[in-house]
Amino acid sequence: MISQFKFNADGLIPAIVQDAKSKRVLMMAWMNDRSIRMTLEKGMMVYFSRSRQKYWVKGETSGNVQRVVRWAVDCDKDTLLFEVEQTGGACHTGYESCFFQELDQHGLPKPIEETPLFDAAKTYGEK
Amino acid sequence: MISQFKFNADGLIPAIVQDAKSKRVLMMAWMNDRSIRMTLEKGMMVYFSRSRQKYWVKGETSGNVQRVVRWAVDCDKDTLLFEVEQTGGACHTGYESCFFQELDQHGLPKPIEETPLFDAAKTYGEK
Repeated sequence: MISQFKFNADGLIPAIVQDAKSKRVLMMAWMNDRSIRMTLEKGMMVYFSRSRQKYWVKGETSGNVQRVVRWAVDCDKDTLLFEVEQTGGACHTGYESCFFQELDQHGLPKPIEETPLFDAAKTYGEK
Repeated sequence: MISQFKFNADGLIPAIVQDAKSKRVLMMAWMNDRSIRMTLEKGMMVYFSRSRQKYWVKGETSGNVQRVVRWAVDCDKDTLLFEVEQTGGACHTGYESCFFQELDQHGLPKPIEETPLFDAAKTYGEK
């Protein structure tokens, strides 16, 4: 069925990633045909980085891997949904989810009430 | 903060839509600056249809509107997440979610065990 997916002009398809237990949406990233096949082989999420133009095994640097529990394609075959078992936090900032910034009805940021799960500076060697 | 969002070359940003109670991911669609502002004004999801190049008040035809409960932007400011109260099913096929087709570890479709929430042919007048 992968051959029937509708990849965009760059050969990419968006993948929504959700925690299999809590159902919290953790992130969205892009995959291509090969990264989908790598993901299924490994049982771990592998994306294609648009900015770096390379395959990206999620958690390779941070250890915060994502084990695939189940996955689905949408009715238009142009978006994927993965439910995963997330080790540590999914976000490169250290938060559990990339969607930690809630907004109000005017589009203004609300105070962030959760704390990061890991120290991004330590994990990624940033200073 | 909307002015800081990273829209793509077509002025669009993907919006993931999740049921606020069950946390099931219902669909993904695209928004532009104006459809975000229309959504906040109405408190109901308004998308921008890439294929029809027009604003699309979700549920306008089907009655299956989506009331915004909360929303967030991701760490890169290039993806939105909306939690909604969904009337009826979100999918134009009649299913609750557009992600009704689960796949196995080989990428093959699994049997669909849920049933549509509404009759798409009746709702949209298709034959």
